[in-house]
Amino acid sequence: MQFAPKDPDWEARVRGSFAAQAFMSYLGAELCHVAPGAVDIELALRLELTQQHGFFHAGSTTSIADSAAGYAALTLFPAGSGVLTTEFKMNLLNAARQPRLLARGRVVKLGRTLTICRGDVYGLGEDEQVHVATGLFTMMCLSGMED
Amino acid sequence: MQFAPKDPDWEARVRGSFAAQAFMSYLGAELCHVAPGAVDIELALRLELTQQHGFFHAGSTTSIADSAAGYAALTLFPAGSGVLTTEFKMNLLNAARQPRLLARGRVVKLGRTLTICRGDVYGLGEDEQVHVATGLFTMMCLSGMED
Amino acid sequence: MQFAPKDPDWEARVRGSFAAQAFMSYLGAELCHVAPGAVDIELALRLELTQQHGFFHAGSTTSIADSAAGYAALTLFPAGSGVLTTEFKMNLLNAARQPRLLARGRVVKLGRTLTICRGDVYGLGEDEQVHVATGLFTMMCLSGMED
Amino acid sequence: MQFAPKDPDWEARVRGSFAAQAFMSYLGAELCHVAPGAVDIELALRLELTQQHGFFHAGSTTSIADSAAGYAALTLFPAGSGVLTTEFKMNLLNAARQPRLLARGRVVKLGRTLTICRGDVYGLGEDEQVHVATGLFTMMCLSGMED
Repeated sequence: MQFAPKDPDWEARVRGSFAAQAFMSYLGAELCHVAPGAVDIELALRLELTQQHGFFHAGSTTSIADSAAGYAALTLFPAGSGVLTTEFKMNLLNAARQPRLLARGRVVKLGRTLTICRGDVYGLGEDEQVHVATGLFTMMCLSGMED
Repeated sequence: MQFAPKDPDWEARVRGSFAAQAFMSYLGAELCHVAPGAVDIELALRLELTQQHGFFHAGSTTSIADSAAGYAALTLFPAGSGVLTTEFKMNLLNAARQPRLLARGRVVKLGRTLTICRGDVYGLGEDEQVHVATGLFTMMCLSGMED
Repeated sequence: MQFAPKDPDWEARVRGSFAAQAFMSYLGAELCHVAPGAVDIELALRLELTQQHGFFHAGSTTSIADSAAGYAALTLFPAGSGVLTTEFKMNLLNAARQPRLLARGRVVKLGRTLTICRGDVYGLGEDEQVHVATGLFTMMCLSGMED
Repeated sequence: MQFAPKDPDWEARVRGSFAAQAFMSYLGAELCHVAPGAVDIELALRLELTQQHGFFHAGSTTSIADSAAGYAALTLFPAGSGVLTTEFKMNLLNAARQPRLLARGRVVKLGRTLTICRGDVYGLGEDEQVHVATGLFTMMCLSGMED
C-alpha cells in the first residue's frame, strides 16, 4: 500500500520519538527501517531477554512488535500529534530462538482517530528466517500531544 | 474459582521457573503471590521501562501480564510439564503512569491441551489503584518439557 | 461497577436500537436484561444456528456477545450518539451444545471515544451452566449518529 | 505459501462439512473458492443480516470469516479429523455496507495441534472493493472427530 505522510518532518519525528523510548534502548532494540506506513525494528538475543527455556520472552517479542506498529502509524500522523496503543493481539507461531528478531510494523488502515496495523516478527538465523509471531494493533492518534 | 493442583510440588516448580526467566529479573519484576490458578507479579517504575511520555511501555505492562497468566496456568499443570503462551490480547485501558504495576494472572478455564487465563494490570499509586490493562491469554501445556 | 447513564432515555434508546437490529431477530435473540453498563441477550438453539457437529456456530455465539457488549456501552453514551464495534476478541472455552445461550455484556472502562467491554457467553441446560466463551470488545461512541 | 494436503479427499471433505453447517446456509453464505490452505466464502446483503444502520452486522461478517478460516485449516488436516475454532480476533476496518461480502481464509502456520489463519473480509460493490475486516484465528485439529 502507498501512503503519503502529512507531516514533512515525519521521519525526524519518528526517529526522535524512538530515541526517547527508554525501554527500547534498555532492550537493545534498533530502528532499522523507516518508510511511510512501515517501520522495522531489530533486536539481538541476550540472556536478559529470555524466558525459562532460553528463547526470547513473549514480552520482548511483543515489545518490539508494538513499537514497530506504533511508529508505522506515527509516520502518517499530522505534525504535533502522538501515538498510543489502545489494544493488540499476538499469535506466537514458532519458538523465538534465533540470534536476532526482526519486527515489521505495517499500517493496514489509516483512520482519523484509529489506525490499524499489522506487526510480524521474524527470527533471523544463519540460514533461516522463521515467522515467530503475527499480530494486529489498534493505534490512536493523540492530537496536541506531540510524541 | 477453586482449583486443585495436580503436582504436590507446584509452588516450588512455579517459583523456580520464574527465577529462571532472565527477562523478569532484567525488568525488576517480583513474584508476590502464588496460589492454585492465581499468580501476581509486581513491577516498580524505572526510566528503563518507559515509552516516550515517561509511562510504562505497553511492552513492560504486557510482559508481566503474560508471565502472571502463564504461571497461573503452570500452578495447575502436571509434574514434568512446561507452559507456553500461544496467543494473547491486551486492551490498554488507562495510562500506566503509577509508581508500581500489579499484574494478576487468573485461570479462567483449565484444559488438557489449552488453558485460558485472564491477565489484569493495575497501576498502584499513593491513594489510587487504576486498572491499566486487561487481557486474555491462551496457554499450552507441554508434556515432557519441564519448566 | 456502578455507572450513571448520561441520557435519561437510555433504556428506551437501547431497546429501540436492539429492535432495529434485523440480524438479532433473524437469529431469534432476545434482550432479557438491560441496566446501566450491563446488557444480557438470550438465544435458543435451533438447527439454523449450528455448525457441522450440531453445536451453536461460533458466529452465532459471537453475534449475541457482540450485541450485548455494544448495548452495554450504549446504555452509558450521551443522547444522540450511536455505537460501533471497532474490534473484539473471543476465546471459545467449551462446546456450545446447550439448549440456550446467555450473553452478558459488561462495561469494563467507559471512555469519551473508546469504551471497553467484556462479553461472556454461558450455555444453559436443565441442570448446568457452562462458560462457553469469553471476549473483550472495543466500542466507539459515534456522536451525532443516533442509534 | 504452498501447502500440500495430507488427505487426497480434502476437497470433498471440506465441501461436505460446509454443506453441513446449517448456519452458513441460513445466512445465505456460499463457498466460492477452495484450495489447499485457502477458502473463500461470499455473502449477499439482505435485511436479515444487518444491524441498526442497515450495514452487515459484525456477527454476520465474523461468521463467514470464521468459517473461511476454519475450512482453510481443514483443507490441510489428515483424513478423519475435524476442526474447531479455539479463539479469534477481528478488527472492523470500514463500514460493511456493500452489496456483497467476500471472506478470505488463509493458513498462516500449520501445526500438529494448532493452526493459525488469517481471515480478511472485503465489501464488494459495483466499482469498489473495501477492506471491511481483518482477523486472526486459532484452529484446533480434532483427531478422530470427522468433520
